[in-house]
Amino acid sequence: QWTVLDWKPRRSDLLIDPFSFGRIVQDGLVFRQNFLIRSYEIGADRTASIETTMNHLQETALNHVKSAGLLDDGFGSTPEMHKRDLIWVVTKMQLRVDRYPSWGDTVQVDTWVSSSGKNGMRRDWLVRDCTTGEVLTRASSLWVLMNKKTRRLSKMPEEVRGEIEPYFINSDPVVEDDNQKLPKLDENTADIMRTGLSPRWNDLDVNQHVNNVKYIGWILESAPPAILESHELSALTLEYRRECGRDSVLRSLTAVSGNLNSALNGSREVKCRHLLRLETGAEIVKGRTEWRPKFRTDGEAFA
Amino acid sequence: QWTVLDWKPRRSDLLIDPFSFGRIVQDGLVFRQNFLIRSYEIGADRTASIETTMNHLQETALNHVKSAGLLDDGFGSTPEMHKRDLIWVVTKMQLRVDRYPSWGDTVQVDTWVSSSGKNGMRRDWLVRDCTTGEVLTRASSLWVLMNKKTRRLSKMPEEVRGEIEPYFINSDPVVEDDNQKLPKLDENTADIMRTGLSPRWNDLDVNQHVNNVKYIGWILESAPPAILESHELSALTLEYRRECGRDSVLRSLTAVSGNLNSALNGSREVKCRHLLRLETGAEIVKGRTEWRPKFRTDGEAFA
Repeated sequence: QWTVLDWKPRRSDLLIDPFSFGRIVQDGLVFRQNFLIRSYEIGADRTASIETTMNHLQETALNHVKSAGLLDDGFGSTPEMHKRDLIWVVTKMQLRVDRYPSWGDTVQVDTWVSSSGKNGMRRDWLVRDCTTGEVLTRASSLWVLMNKKTRRLSKMPEEVRGEIEPYFINSDPVVEDDNQKLPKLDENTADIMRTGLSPRWNDLDVNQHVNNVKYIGWILESAPPAILESHELSALTLEYRRECGRDSVLRSLTAVSGNLNSALNGSREVKCRHLLRLETGAEIVKGRTEWRPKFRTDGEAFA
Repeated sequence: QWTVLDWKPRRSDLLIDPFSFGRIVQDGLVFRQNFLIRSYEIGADRTASIETTMNHLQETALNHVKSAGLLDDGFGSTPEMHKRDLIWVVTKMQLRVDRYPSWGDTVQVDTWVSSSGKNGMRRDWLVRDCTTGEVLTRASSLWVLMNKKTRRLSKMPEEVRGEIEPYFINSDPVVEDDNQKLPKLDENTADIMRTGLSPRWNDLDVNQHVNNVKYIGWILESAPPAILESHELSALTLEYRRECGRDSVLRSLTAVSGNLNSALNGSREVKCRHLLRLETGAEIVKGRTEWRPKFRTDGEAFA
């Protein structure tokens, strides 16, 4: 049986589409929402893009907080956080994608939160094919508090912990943190560099900052086009170091592990390291990606 | 009463979310689909962006053709078009936006097609607030056939007309074509120019061409930031001249009608002209926009 926890009445206009809005399941600690993949959410491969997947993760995270009645400012802050000008910022995001859905597919996204150290929170997601139950994507993220005025990280006040702790599930992350340290990536060690990247008006969120999901687009700007064509992203780790705003100008660097030509020769997995930094130097996001061939050697597509 | 025309059985996984998929209404000639506005579809103003609106129009157009059983290649071509390598290309798009919806709002999009001359088709849309029925957006577009191999425009074969004519509604366009001719826009007459714009990997559609909706993002790249901040887009006309692909490098030009400073001084409507062209010269899209102040002079927001 399901226990609904602090459930707010739905607005009448949402009732017409209840599954799209989502609901609390599993003793009130897991939030579930379905997404029908739309034509404009797929890319050149006819499957949902990584941005689409990350957008669905973001949407369920926000609706989870909203459903739990903990949303104060409309963008993920609890009432006690709002009083103290605190907002959530993501520090790390890890995804493993087994299969990308297609236009017309429906995916079911489950999300829940757990504690992470003294001052943090972990949020996990499981994305399944709604028809078969097959797991498509697993994702795990780490969050800390930031003062939105000073833009400095903050300890978690007891009052905030009191609000969110009842929602924590005691579980292992769905993507294990490998805590892998990577050699420094700079202009000398990168294989590809793209300079002069800047936000479009539409990349900005309500705080006039660049939305977390947009960074992946810039990171892929320096991914070798040959990899984008022959491979699909199977794993992604992003470490967020600094926020960037509407006037930021960025540089995207990618290094392919091993020899670039040999990486593309034949149908084997490829690993890349990425750095997104301001043209003026500061690191914005560090990342790692893994890519698997889109086609088997016998010419048959994986998906 | 509603007559359902040539209705195909729904896939079972769509049944869980039937309103999101949409349905045929009004004697089988109007296709209707609801969209719950998601957090990642809103911009810095906390309301749906113009791209979001245009994405919803695109999605309903494709689902309309799909529902009518006329979809062959999965992207809007009928069987007789597919046989002849013909695809639809949009030549003109006109929108009037009275109000932008917010995150959590549900909009209802109605779309239908009409004849347009001997070789064309007109598609109209009405977007309403699902709760109040208030009309939010009206849009009208013109389409012609193109041979996807030669990339040349084509007359409409009788067999194609036979397939689509039963779906035509005899109605006036929801946005009247003013057929306004505008003075030539070039580097000398533009107020703002942005150069070196190129598609991101994610901007490409399944044909490796830039999706129609993406052009508006580039056009807004040369809109004066002061207008983007103080005004909202109320009307848009796009004339599509040429397609562009993944290697295209574009230039975006905007001219503000009248004096730019006086246009921004006070809270009055502003009109702009736009041109998106290849760096090498060819015109891609010509456009016109109208903007209304976001706030009344008494400081109260419109929306």
